[in-house]
Amino acid sequence: MKLLSFRYEGQTLFGPKVKREEAVWDLLAMAEALEQTDFPKTMIEGVSHGMDFLEEVRKLVEKTEAEGNVEEFKRAFTDIEWLSPIPRTPKNVLCVGKNYLDHAEELGSKAPEKLMLFTKSPTAIAGDEQTLSIHSEVTDSLDYEGELAVVISKTGKNIPKQLAYDYVFGYTIGNDITARNIQTEHKQFFLGKSLDDSCPMGPYVVTKDEIPNPQNLSVVTKVNDEVRQNGNTSNMIFKIDELIAEISKYVTLEPGDVILTGTPAGVGKGMTPPTYLKKGDTVKVSIEGIGTLVNRFE
Amino acid sequence: MKLLSFRYEGQTLFGPKVKREEAVWDLLAMAEALEQTDFPKTMIEGVSHGMDFLEEVRKLVEKTEAEGNVEEFKRAFTDIEWLSPIPRTPKNVLCVGKNYLDHAEELGSKAPEKLMLFTKSPTAIAGDEQTLSIHSEVTDSLDYEGELAVVISKTGKNIPKQLAYDYVFGYTIGNDITARNIQTEHKQFFLGKSLDDSCPMGPYVVTKDEIPNPQNLSVVTKVNDEVRQNGNTSNMIFKIDELIAEISKYVTLEPGDVILTGTPAGVGKGMTPPTYLKKGDTVKVSIEGIGTLVNRFE
Repeated sequence: MKLLSFRYEGQTLFGPKVKREEAVWDLLAMAEALEQTDFPKTMIEGVSHGMDFLEEVRKLVEKTEAEGNVEEFKRAFTDIEWLSPIPRTPKNVLCVGKNYLDHAEELGSKAPEKLMLFTKSPTAIAGDEQTLSIHSEVTDSLDYEGELAVVISKTGKNIPKQLAYDYVFGYTIGNDITARNIQTEHKQFFLGKSLDDSCPMGPYVVTKDEIPNPQNLSVVTKVNDEVRQNGNTSNMIFKIDELIAEISKYVTLEPGDVILTGTPAGVGKGMTPPTYLKKGDTVKVSIEGIGTLVNRFE
Repeated sequence: MKLLSFRYEGQTLFGPKVKREEAVWDLLAMAEALEQTDFPKTMIEGVSHGMDFLEEVRKLVEKTEAEGNVEEFKRAFTDIEWLSPIPRTPKNVLCVGKNYLDHAEELGSKAPEKLMLFTKSPTAIAGDEQTLSIHSEVTDSLDYEGELAVVISKTGKNIPKQLAYDYVFGYTIGNDITARNIQTEHKQFFLGKSLDDSCPMGPYVVTKDEIPNPQNLSVVTKVNDEVRQNGNTSNMIFKIDELIAEISKYVTLEPGDVILTGTPAGVGKGMTPPTYLKKGDTVKVSIEGIGTLVNRFE
């Protein structure tokens, strides 16, 4: 199932894409019309139900269709503002550094021996198609990093690698936008990774049942239609199950947490000469089976 | 005003200390009894009202006293479980690294030229008097760091240094418990700083009107009554107003955000030989005008 979060008439809403239509079901309006008060009120509440949420959604769509008046519950993509599928994570977005060997090498580093984990403020989360700030007041070196994002469905600590996928709800696309000057000067990555709108995600969270092998997906990042990154999740150093096991050895994971799994080679900092984002640029990150996340910079 | 958050009969509650009594006013119960439905439902909602919240609290206490039945709204400290005054921050706790020269030096570093900011997961937040895990399964080098914690009252970006205190609600005490082995091996500090219960805070948030000069407060940390840290907030490298201005240049601050302002010299890692926390140890962090945060390790 492809689920999205969106703004419509001033409200933050969520629902699945309508099959064969460029529209989304407005689940909250449907639940209200059917007086189904126990239906999840937020995307994260739905996510916390894991795969049962898909069944709840399907039943609600079926019931609505049975009632006949389906059109009033569809919101055309042209009428909505896309939000990150998880508009606000319960803690900072968890980000893996240097998780592709070719990317570590282009930054002059080796593969890390231990997981390098940093965070992005949830105030940085943005949506697909959102115009993002170039932040020229604080940075001359804003860079993109296209990444597979994993959405966590339930609370877990010390999760065994063998059970890691039980804690996965699905996948989306993230662009870990980074102010390289701030990242470098301030030593710890947090500030340079947390500018407003520097964590666009979307367009959908695709539930894990539709992505049989998340470790074999192409990840392509284009700047103004020029291919900059052309990687594959098969080249991650720490795989998704290892990431979940290792992170949860230390930190309690929660429903709605997002792990950005690292970026392959091809970032602006790795080019000769380094080539950073500028006003008017459009960045598109495409991941096989999920879609394309598009953002323009102003 | 000294405000605290607490658990009582399975609920998360908050209120001010009752004057001259070892008890707290249960504000939610008082608001309910007086059918005052517009009273803040959470500590963060109160904090977001800034200094107006103090007036709201005072009026509620006065009205309750006028009704006569005051005893039923007081919760004795012996009957409550102390929580962090902000039980859950809206984003990760913001932490300043190496903000006291003597501490930077004891770690073999210089004063940082630029603000070093890292985060602790909100899942690490714990309360005063809470027994904390020694986490021997993942670390042999758990360390304390007593710190002044600043509680933010309103949303802000690019806050001028001159207006920084307008965004402060008050102060509490934090212990930035750190697994030194994890902090070092994983390069970025986040994992070694985010073990469960590694961010005890409390006992109170003391509102800013009661702390006329937060840059002249003694900070004393004792392990089993042995003084380990004996610093003063006058020795911060980046002062509170500079921290708020600098952080908000990059990251949007929000009501309930907490900034841990760094620790003075005297951490276990800086001792010869390094001396880390062990089972049975009690750590007390005292800050002038705020109180003492006490935690035992098991």
